[in-house]
Amino acid sequence: MKVGFIQMSIELLDIKKNVDNAIKLMEKNEASLIVLPELFNTGYNFKNKKEVLDVSENIPDGYTTKTLKDFTEDTNKTIVFGLSEKTEKGLYNSLAVVSKGEYIGKYRKIHLFFDEKNYFLPGDLGFKIFEVEGIKIGTIICFDWFFPESTRTLSLMGADILCHPANLVMPYCPEAMKTICLQNRVYSITSNRIGEERGLKFIGQSQIVGPDGKIIFRASEAKQESYEVEVDPLIARDKNLNPKNNIFNDRKPEFYKII
Amino acid sequence: MKVGFIQMSIELLDIKKNVDNAIKLMEKNEASLIVLPELFNTGYNFKNKKEVLDVSENIPDGYTTKTLKDFTEDTNKTIVFGLSEKTEKGLYNSLAVVSKGEYIGKYRKIHLFFDEKNYFLPGDLGFKIFEVEGIKIGTIICFDWFFPESTRTLSLMGADILCHPANLVMPYCPEAMKTICLQNRVYSITSNRIGEERGLKFIGQSQIVGPDGKIIFRASEAKQESYEVEVDPLIARDKNLNPKNNIFNDRKPEFYKII
Repeated sequence: MKVGFIQMSIELLDIKKNVDNAIKLMEKNEASLIVLPELFNTGYNFKNKKEVLDVSENIPDGYTTKTLKDFTEDTNKTIVFGLSEKTEKGLYNSLAVVSKGEYIGKYRKIHLFFDEKNYFLPGDLGFKIFEVEGIKIGTIICFDWFFPESTRTLSLMGADILCHPANLVMPYCPEAMKTICLQNRVYSITSNRIGEERGLKFIGQSQIVGPDGKIIFRASEAKQESYEVEVDPLIARDKNLNPKNNIFNDRKPEFYKII
Repeated sequence: MKVGFIQMSIELLDIKKNVDNAIKLMEKNEASLIVLPELFNTGYNFKNKKEVLDVSENIPDGYTTKTLKDFTEDTNKTIVFGLSEKTEKGLYNSLAVVSKGEYIGKYRKIHLFFDEKNYFLPGDLGFKIFEVEGIKIGTIICFDWFFPESTRTLSLMGADILCHPANLVMPYCPEAMKTICLQNRVYSITSNRIGEERGLKFIGQSQIVGPDGKIIFRASEAKQESYEVEVDPLIARDKNLNPKNNIFNDRKPEFYKII
């Protein structure tokens, strides 16, 4: 199975331009699973709530989800992409999954970072697994990675691949994902953006990591990049680290006090 | 507060020699908290259960715990060290804590690695915090690090410093501890051994990591080293990553399914 990501520059508040740019980059990417950045269609560094509200959309009926869903029609493509979701209760920093012309589902970011707390409600849907062609996709958004429970929960729920739309500004995530993938024996695809927005700089370095904790590919810090690679997601179902240690069977939940 | 570790070579099955070596190295180390390797007094790569049994000791009444306890008398020293513990139920891969002439407590390794399963029972005491001079010490032994719940549990229990006696053979731990310390905003002191034992090579690289995930010091791969450094363990109690994110308050346990 070919998986990939789009690392892109984003024009703040210009949905049409960003969606067009993503589609142009995806047209040349043969991966059947592609991850786009967090809030890829709107940008990130909002000035106030009104600005966010004006570029928020319904999922799945808004422009962005509908356009990407249509783009996957008559292809083998699944796309995981971040966007601001408008609901009656308020806004969420969400992602949606579309596949072969169908809307599959959404996830709402549970751990909000910094000023996001001014604009978004914390996700209320829990962690989600989306099954596409027999592959189990677990989703987190950006700062969720900082909480080891996020990725552990998804891995225990059976995720083969963690799809991770991001707008990373801190330097830590690319290295941390190696440990996270190793400890859970899962793949991860982190799609980050590049560029600067009102003085806030994004670090690029989108990457794909294997269940052995090794980087399969890490993108540059500042260039647009479209990447694809052949992987076998089913490797992630083998939780044997060696003939005597299975990292899930070896767990001792009776001693874990994390709730 | 000065903390440190001893990275040492170990003579398989020669308790007296190993304890003497550790004491000699500690005499020149001014840290008030010192971590020694896992099974520092016996070595690691046992041939059979009888070999382990012959070098196992009671805690706190056995030779090693008593000798190190006496060594700390009339000093400001606390020592965390690994040894094979003999009990009526069987053997445990344990650590003990002694401080200023007193026995403080012990922890039994919960996640056993590879052939250890042939010799030791899995730890049955849970994760433990030992308070010494107002500092909260959380303990894990070697492979426990692989399970994010170990270090998360101890951090949520209030650990300022994770003391981590180890006999590392896989390459991953030194880098992983950076992510673990960052995600929990705690210090860690990993004390590893060096050398080869019946064909099994240990990777050295004992280290101290800060709550910001940065390496304070990493030792060599193959030399004996005694290291000490001044740190402020209370920094670990500040879980604020920035003015809007407190990594403990931001947790959403209602969505964590790890038990």
